[in-house]
Amino acid sequence: MINVAIMGHGVVGSGAAEILINHKDRIEKAVKDEVFVKYILDLREFNELSYADKFTKNFDDILNDDTVKVVAEVMGGVNPAYDFVKKCLENGKSVVTSNKELVAAKGAELIKIANRENVNFLFEASVGGGIPVLRPMVQCLSANEITEVSGILNGTTNYILNKMIVDNMDFDSALSLAQQKGYAERNPAADIEGHDACRKVCILAALAFGKHVYPEQVYTEGITEITLDDVAMADSLGYVIKLIGHTEKLENGKITASVRPTLVGRDCILSGVNGVFNAIMVTGDQTGEVAFYGKGAGKEATASAVVADMVDCMKHLSARKYLSWEDGFDTYVDTNYDKNGKFYVYLKSNNYNELENQFKNAFANTDSVVKNEISGEICFITEKDFESNIKTKLASFKNCEYKLLHTMS
Amino acid sequence: MINVAIMGHGVVGSGAAEILINHKDRIEKAVKDEVFVKYILDLREFNELSYADKFTKNFDDILNDDTVKVVAEVMGGVNPAYDFVKKCLENGKSVVTSNKELVAAKGAELIKIANRENVNFLFEASVGGGIPVLRPMVQCLSANEITEVSGILNGTTNYILNKMIVDNMDFDSALSLAQQKGYAERNPAADIEGHDACRKVCILAALAFGKHVYPEQVYTEGITEITLDDVAMADSLGYVIKLIGHTEKLENGKITASVRPTLVGRDCILSGVNGVFNAIMVTGDQTGEVAFYGKGAGKEATASAVVADMVDCMKHLSARKYLSWEDGFDTYVDTNYDKNGKFYVYLKSNNYNELENQFKNAFANTDSVVKNEISGEICFITEKDFESNIKTKLASFKNCEYKLLHTMS
Repeated sequence: MINVAIMGHGVVGSGAAEILINHKDRIEKAVKDEVFVKYILDLREFNELSYADKFTKNFDDILNDDTVKVVAEVMGGVNPAYDFVKKCLENGKSVVTSNKELVAAKGAELIKIANRENVNFLFEASVGGGIPVLRPMVQCLSANEITEVSGILNGTTNYILNKMIVDNMDFDSALSLAQQKGYAERNPAADIEGHDACRKVCILAALAFGKHVYPEQVYTEGITEITLDDVAMADSLGYVIKLIGHTEKLENGKITASVRPTLVGRDCILSGVNGVFNAIMVTGDQTGEVAFYGKGAGKEATASAVVADMVDCMKHLSARKYLSWEDGFDTYVDTNYDKNGKFYVYLKSNNYNELENQFKNAFANTDSVVKNEISGEICFITEKDFESNIKTKLASFKNCEYKLLHTMS
Repeated sequence: MINVAIMGHGVVGSGAAEILINHKDRIEKAVKDEVFVKYILDLREFNELSYADKFTKNFDDILNDDTVKVVAEVMGGVNPAYDFVKKCLENGKSVVTSNKELVAAKGAELIKIANRENVNFLFEASVGGGIPVLRPMVQCLSANEITEVSGILNGTTNYILNKMIVDNMDFDSALSLAQQKGYAERNPAADIEGHDACRKVCILAALAFGKHVYPEQVYTEGITEITLDDVAMADSLGYVIKLIGHTEKLENGKITASVRPTLVGRDCILSGVNGVFNAIMVTGDQTGEVAFYGKGAGKEATASAVVADMVDCMKHLSARKYLSWEDGFDTYVDTNYDKNGKFYVYLKSNNYNELENQFKNAFANTDSVVKNEISGEICFITEKDFESNIKTKLASFKNCEYKLLHTMS
């Protein structure tokens, strides 16, 4: 018999408890052993639950019980999760977590401790919720060099953008609807400002390229500045706007990492990812593009990924070491990366004729353009060029405001 | 040092040899040991190759060399592959294969031998080429009960249908183009008649539901009867036609398994899978729909999946037993399954007025209809009903030919 514990009985924690208890047969068949949930750590009272006897408010009950071999940390936040996870690993317990904030902040250190103690530290649920992506990335792509990872990593923002695109709903109304439906928190900043996606980019970049990437090193821009105008213009130009997390290996040995609203061409599989769904596209030098798609959040999906990691730990109680990376360093992420590509530019002026003349002079060869003389707007997709060159040109425009977004196809 | 052998130096075999030899560093880093390709089995001469010294025409060289621990079978076909693989396993060698025909015909037996001999038999490349799907299905979904698997499993037919849909090219021209581009064989029957997809359905069904499914048990219909008319009608109704492999657990304990042209709703992620790409969608009771997308064929993609399996074998020389299923039996697949769903119906008659009257009488509540009085055609999506009921109604129509296809959304 293997004893396990769950730290946190929120959405994901209660989901994990329910799977482990209600689907005991399935879990034990996979583990090939009896599995018993011995403790659930939470400060709140859950007396009405059939498994109320498992609750404890004291972390030491779990830490000091040597029969507990696998612990799920589903509390969220860096503290006290970091302290608890570290102590569990140091006491010879394998830990699984869905906590992207923790992994993005402390992943390299916790992996090191786990390897030293010969236990597992797994976190499949931290990226893409119920979508298997980290394990397949490492295991199945072991014959590839990964060159690039791009993804729709946040379901809330994808839902909001989708409502703007499909239902012509403005940003504020779409956000309200997402909150009503429980897809967005009452304080939606972590989602709409891109911080949640940023943490996932850190984890994907670390795994793909082998060194820790810290959230502060990732250029992070949310979707709060995206208007219905942008959405409509993108549509006319053959694109949809998505919040894309991206990381890529550069020729100078560094990497680039970013989260930003991006125009995605309709031929790209990511353009068809709607609602609260997520998708992660991994490019390997041998296999080309592969993508993983599914629900990026939600109780059952995320909990099932946590439990699958617990099952893996129970099947392999000693360290498997396949999810692993080294410490990062300051200059590893090229924060001045100057992308060479096609960009979306939105121009607006009170003097349309002047604007059009300036546009014609600066971007003579552009053929993908939408103009609106009445509203004084010109939108276009640039020729392939460095972002810095485009910005220099745009900075010279008179009496005009502009917006520039990346594109991908 | 670990010695390996490759049986077959065709497209996939030469790709695997190139990765193992040209990317030796990468492979050895993943395996954490030296890796040496000792033999390549092929009856042809490859004297011009830098690694010509590795070739042998004699299978016994591999079989009787106890230092060879891992063998890749990439010859294709059931014979002599079956005999060679069986003997390798019985001699204590792990085997990986990309050979779907072999796995669909003999998988349960070969898995049983591998488990008995405590070696591995892995076949990630047999479904979806370079897409990681079998391993994630088993490992990451261990907390789920899989209820359904649907996929675009054949790149050739997807390419042809895509050319029909996007470029309005007729079937024969699209097939010719696919042959010119090397996407289709000179004898394209295995692809266009659905047999290749059928073998992959067998493997997915076996893995998802635990019992071997034989190709003869899978309802298999290719794309040769699909016309530009169907493609256009589907488009008007909001669908695209894809060749879909499908398997589902039924309430009576049996399963259903099929390959057939299917109308896929535009909201479904599979509708956006274009060109030679494949995608497999797995539905779990906890995680909902997850999908895996990428190149389903091609030298580098498939070879990288073969090599990744070889790496896995080298890291774990004793049996890991996670890809496993039992023998199947005659009545396990419900070949009389009567689907309850919405269907696409195409009707054509020389007497349009008579046709329309019959249609109105039989399908009064249908609101998704496209009519063409001049050509005498009516196409529509039925209300949700049993396939048998729809067919009974259609059989009573006078002076009319009809076609019925499944839909999914």
